[in-house]
Amino acid sequence: MKATRIVQNILKNYEGETPGVKANLNRILMTGKLGGTGKMIILPVDQGFEHGPARSFAPNPAAYDPHYHYQLAIDAGLNAYAAPLGMIEAGADTFAGQIPTILKVNSANSLIPSESPKTQAITGSVDDALRLGCSAIGFTVYPGSSMALDMFSDISAMREEAARKGIATVIWSYPRGEALDKDGETAADIGAYAAQIAALLGAHIIKVKLSTDHLSLKEAKKVYEDEKIDISTQAARVADVMKSSFNGRRIVVFSGGSKKGIDGVFDDARAIRDGGGNGSIIGRNTFQRERGEALEMLAKLVEIYRGKA
Amino acid sequence: MKATRIVQNILKNYEGETPGVKANLNRILMTGKLGGTGKMIILPVDQGFEHGPARSFAPNPAAYDPHYHYQLAIDAGLNAYAAPLGMIEAGADTFAGQIPTILKVNSANSLIPSESPKTQAITGSVDDALRLGCSAIGFTVYPGSSMALDMFSDISAMREEAARKGIATVIWSYPRGEALDKDGETAADIGAYAAQIAALLGAHIIKVKLSTDHLSLKEAKKVYEDEKIDISTQAARVADVMKSSFNGRRIVVFSGGSKKGIDGVFDDARAIRDGGGNGSIIGRNTFQRERGEALEMLAKLVEIYRGKA
Amino acid sequence: MKATRIVQNILKNYEGETPGVKANLNRILMTGKLGGTGKMIILPVDQGFEHGPARSFAPNPAAYDPHYHYQLAIDAGLNAYAAPLGMIEAGADTFAGQIPTILKVNSANSLIPSESPKTQAITGSVDDALRLGCSAIGFTVYPGSSMALDMFSDISAMREEAARKGIATVIWSYPRGEALDKDGETAADIGAYAAQIAALLGAHIIKVKLSTDHLSLKEAKKVYEDEKIDISTQAARVADVMKSSFNGRRIVVFSGGSKKGIDGVFDDARAIRDGGGNGSIIGRNTFQRERGEALEMLAKLVEIYRGKA
Amino acid sequence: MKATRIVQNILKNYEGETPGVKANLNRILMTGKLGGTGKMIILPVDQGFEHGPARSFAPNPAAYDPHYHYQLAIDAGLNAYAAPLGMIEAGADTFAGQIPTILKVNSANSLIPSESPKTQAITGSVDDALRLGCSAIGFTVYPGSSMALDMFSDISAMREEAARKGIATVIWSYPRGEALDKDGETAADIGAYAAQIAALLGAHIIKVKLSTDHLSLKEAKKVYEDEKIDISTQAARVADVMKSSFNGRRIVVFSGGSKKGIDGVFDDARAIRDGGGNGSIIGRNTFQRERGEALEMLAKLVEIYRGKA
Amino acid sequence: MKATRIVQNILKNYEGETPGVKANLNRILMTGKLGGTGKMIILPVDQGFEHGPARSFAPNPAAYDPHYHYQLAIDAGLNAYAAPLGMIEAGADTFAGQIPTILKVNSANSLIPSESPKTQAITGSVDDALRLGCSAIGFTVYPGSSMALDMFSDISAMREEAARKGIATVIWSYPRGEALDKDGETAADIGAYAAQIAALLGAHIIKVKLSTDHLSLKEAKKVYEDEKIDISTQAARVADVMKSSFNGRRIVVFSGGSKKGIDGVFDDARAIRDGGGNGSIIGRNTFQRERGEALEMLAKLVEIYRGKA
Repeated sequence: MKATRIVQNILKNYEGETPGVKANLNRILMTGKLGGTGKMIILPVDQGFEHGPARSFAPNPAAYDPHYHYQLAIDAGLNAYAAPLGMIEAGADTFAGQIPTILKVNSANSLIPSESPKTQAITGSVDDALRLGCSAIGFTVYPGSSMALDMFSDISAMREEAARKGIATVIWSYPRGEALDKDGETAADIGAYAAQIAALLGAHIIKVKLSTDHLSLKEAKKVYEDEKIDISTQAARVADVMKSSFNGRRIVVFSGGSKKGIDGVFDDARAIRDGGGNGSIIGRNTFQRERGEALEMLAKLVEIYRGKA
Repeated sequence: MKATRIVQNILKNYEGETPGVKANLNRILMTGKLGGTGKMIILPVDQGFEHGPARSFAPNPAAYDPHYHYQLAIDAGLNAYAAPLGMIEAGADTFAGQIPTILKVNSANSLIPSESPKTQAITGSVDDALRLGCSAIGFTVYPGSSMALDMFSDISAMREEAARKGIATVIWSYPRGEALDKDGETAADIGAYAAQIAALLGAHIIKVKLSTDHLSLKEAKKVYEDEKIDISTQAARVADVMKSSFNGRRIVVFSGGSKKGIDGVFDDARAIRDGGGNGSIIGRNTFQRERGEALEMLAKLVEIYRGKA
Repeated sequence: MKATRIVQNILKNYEGETPGVKANLNRILMTGKLGGTGKMIILPVDQGFEHGPARSFAPNPAAYDPHYHYQLAIDAGLNAYAAPLGMIEAGADTFAGQIPTILKVNSANSLIPSESPKTQAITGSVDDALRLGCSAIGFTVYPGSSMALDMFSDISAMREEAARKGIATVIWSYPRGEALDKDGETAADIGAYAAQIAALLGAHIIKVKLSTDHLSLKEAKKVYEDEKIDISTQAARVADVMKSSFNGRRIVVFSGGSKKGIDGVFDDARAIRDGGGNGSIIGRNTFQRERGEALEMLAKLVEIYRGKA
Repeated sequence: MKATRIVQNILKNYEGETPGVKANLNRILMTGKLGGTGKMIILPVDQGFEHGPARSFAPNPAAYDPHYHYQLAIDAGLNAYAAPLGMIEAGADTFAGQIPTILKVNSANSLIPSESPKTQAITGSVDDALRLGCSAIGFTVYPGSSMALDMFSDISAMREEAARKGIATVIWSYPRGEALDKDGETAADIGAYAAQIAALLGAHIIKVKLSTDHLSLKEAKKVYEDEKIDISTQAARVADVMKSSFNGRRIVVFSGGSKKGIDGVFDDARAIRDGGGNGSIIGRNTFQRERGEALEMLAKLVEIYRGKA
Repeated sequence: MKATRIVQNILKNYEGETPGVKANLNRILMTGKLGGTGKMIILPVDQGFEHGPARSFAPNPAAYDPHYHYQLAIDAGLNAYAAPLGMIEAGADTFAGQIPTILKVNSANSLIPSESPKTQAITGSVDDALRLGCSAIGFTVYPGSSMALDMFSDISAMREEAARKGIATVIWSYPRGEALDKDGETAADIGAYAAQIAALLGAHIIKVKLSTDHLSLKEAKKVYEDEKIDISTQAARVADVMKSSFNGRRIVVFSGGSKKGIDGVFDDARAIRDGGGNGSIIGRNTFQRERGEALEMLAKLVEIYRGKA
């Protein structure tokens, strides 16, 4: 697929990278209604692992079927669909080539004892991604966890293998663990730090949460205040994250968390756009809505990212 | 073996899978008195590892001999026989090709100290399964255990190897561990969650326990009540499990637990059938009965799954 | 070596096994004064690792020399000699081919802190066994230990490699660990359970201790009493172990423990024989006696197993 | 690049080493304004991992961009630029061949819980270094940590692979961990010990911190006093470190820690020079200054190492 | 190098071993002033790792230079020089082929927290030994440590690889750890046990400490007393160790510990000789003395082992 100039400029930032990885990034960037704009919307469906099927799918029972999500992502003109092995496999033939897919290769699970250290199970391989025609692997790290260093080492090794085999790497960088309180998990300084870690680990696409204006680490707080880094608005905080992602040399998408009012979703997208972010990765707010409503919402999001809403 | 239309439709759900795996699923689905119906009964004999030989076999001493189980499964017209390495090997020549076998590749053990984390030992390999002519490997995971993530990672790697080599994967998904109380292990929400995890891990056949109408996880309970998910009957709960197994795109068989009255066994099977489940995996209720009685019971179960009882 | 009918019938039980493994079992079964009878006596010398050299060899100082044990086993007409790497190597050229050897590939050590979990170090490999011309590897598992699952997994992998390379596997199944009290280690139900575990793990020859008439596990005790399993005599308990070893489809040898009066040794052997066991594995009771006395004792044991004493 | 006699003499100390490693050491030693003098200045930028982006780059926001550091190191005529994977990749094409690079293959992280044992995540591989055209890998060890032995083993294996593939190894030997108090981390005896460990591990370039005149280990303190080892000045302490680095047979560079007054930086360099050290590795003191000021400072440092200031 | 009859007889004890290993043992046994006598003196310099550079080398500062030790061992006519990777590499070209070298492949470190379990880091590989032209690898085990079983498994695997590649294995068997008090570490029964363990692990050369007449393990003490094993003199204790080393079928060298008076060193050597030991491994007592004095002392030791002093 011929890339637009915007996309070519983004790809140029991926220096030293294999043509295979660049081709897959190009595929994601040129697909769907935002194709060629440098913006993207990704549908992630890994909540069945983390929250169980009822909490994830009962509000919109059609979503119990893995085909539902493939079809929704295609019909809405999204850039990519991300899910764990079983979900990807369940539609791999039917939807082959219709939308770029991201194989989530590690998975959380809310059934493990709460006192267990925060980490995920590795549940897929780079070769699975190749076999299933995926464009990328997705991997979650938990900066702040006592298991964080192991997670960093694991994804470093998988990223190396994936890049060698022409597969891109998306890192979900989610602060969580013994070192962080609830406010810290979404603090502005920690969100920027999480993005920086993902970039240093070699992520091609970084996924972080939108943050609050809270500052958590004492030494970082001092710098934010001394240097007058603006974190007063969501857009300013997105801009700080982009700066922390190699000064915007990496693609960053933002997630919005649990289901919320539709205006909140739109406000989030505008802030991402205005702060220079690359887009949204939006799961529960999509598939827990009735299909028609979800398509309408996604169409509006496209408009926002195109600067028309 | 030529597949019936029902079986062909089931196999179509295994998208992206190797022909070897589909051939082995076909073998299991087309074997025995339920061959071609999409229903199945499996005989599992791994209790010697978990409970010891006396508790397992003394009630029907003929069952101390590994040949007994092969012969019983064949004579009863079952779909497959599942057991650990030693048991499979002990009849591997005598019964070669007479019934599909499932090599149980991890095993529990009730002699380990009770304070040890809940997990199993890996006691067989995919290459063992190939060498012994097995159709599938079987692997137990314990969602709820502090070892669950390790178990998920182990089976993910073994499933990848098995599928590559044309061997199907059966996952025993048994909630157990520090995070669960006794009621939680058989709660309706947790049973559905366990099935979802097995499906996401890439299981071709899912084995779960029949559940009670108890709801264990607070957040799931709220969803079950808000969305009015019916769990009032065993058949309704089976239907919820099937929905949680990719909306019925995966084969699910149910186990009934310790030996019970024969009417209970039949009631269970009718509920599995009525809820859309694929069948029973039934061990102690089979081999702890005298052979004639067991064959009679299994014949009746076949009738139930054929809708004639 | 042409097998007798008795030995041929034993080998038939090893279904699905490689010809190499069967050839090595045949070698062991056809060697020595009991060759061809289906009975066997094995000399194990691994006490230097577990108890140190003085406790093992000072009572009969000639036994400090590794050649002593080779020569004793050959002169006594035993079936095989089992020892750790260093001991086997020290006579590997001198006695090459004169007696089947079993390389003990893991080893205990009484110097480790008593609060350490009960396990052994892996101190030899299958390739060591091949290189040294051994017929089998020997591996100890400790059912009842918090490390038992790891030991099961280790021997499963080594057994697979050994069988693939034509080497037989002997499992020492010794209940020990945090879950067991002193009486439990030699209880009748636990001894039978230990034999069953070794059989399930794929052992070709099982080594267990003779047990007492104590029953240790509450649920097993109930079954022994309900089903009236006879454990009143040593011979009856041996028979229960044989039944638990795939109804006698596996070779089982019994050890007698620390040095005892010579009549006790003979009584043990008669019980093993009368209960259907395959023989004795007898270390300290052999090499801690003066050589002449030991040869005499072993000659008498041969007579017992031949039914002549 | 033809080596000067000084550099040839340094390279002669790397006995038994592959020509590839020597060629890469030569590249580093012959590059930049100090090329050929046997002295070197290295720019390390791994603080984003350890302290986060704001604390590292906000004081001089141009430094958020990975290109900034490449350009600064080139323009200042430094010998090498060291950074983690993401930073190196982000300029790998633009600056290919313009300056020797050192891939930092493990990384610290200040978000992990403070009670976690002190160690780093492995975040890059020797093959990454080859692919990206790096001259060396960089690895941090923490003598004094409960994880130190694991770190030693990890770098031993990586160093072996790197040398085999013609890549040099730089070891950051930073005393840190449960065994050391704050004064101990920079004590003179411990600094020399840290250098010795790096040398024994096979480091080609050793990076240690400048130390104080504190002596921490009781037994070492006694020897320092008995043997009257001079540690009264910074230069004397540098000399002691050089002696402890195989009597000066290994290249040692010194770091100065957090940002300090510019005179302090110069005094440090003079002490390193006068004590026989090979140079400075200087991060925050460089990139947290405005570019013009940093270039001026680096020019002065070059003068100092050339003995002209 | 043609072997003397004495050396040929020693080599015959290494049954089943590769010609490469025997050739390297021959090299060590035929080198230096004791060449051909079956006796040997080895210079070990690994104290920099365990005690740091000042405690090791400051008493004789020439010893900071790795070349010093090579030259000393050559000039004194010793049989071999043993050191960690960095030390061996630093003279690998200059002294290539001039003296057999032993690469110490694991290393202790006195900076790790005192509560850490007693073990060492693996800091070299068999391939390093090959590359550097070494005759043997050296590995320390700590019988008595909670890590002992891991150490045994590690050296078992390395020994197998080394022997396959023609490299001999020297095991430093040093009782240390939670299970032993200070007296136990040098007790006569434990020293003999340590030698036995090394022999069973397949060591070609065993290094143990000289022991005291203390008996530490209750059950061993009883045997020593019952069997009247003579441990009253150092020579008697050496004889007990030799007996415990496969009745003298293995080469055993003894270390004397920290620096002591020169008469003590000579008395130790006479006891080793009279007890049938193979020689001394003598580090601090050599290189902490001034070179002339050390050469004189070593010349006298040679005389002692030749029976002339």
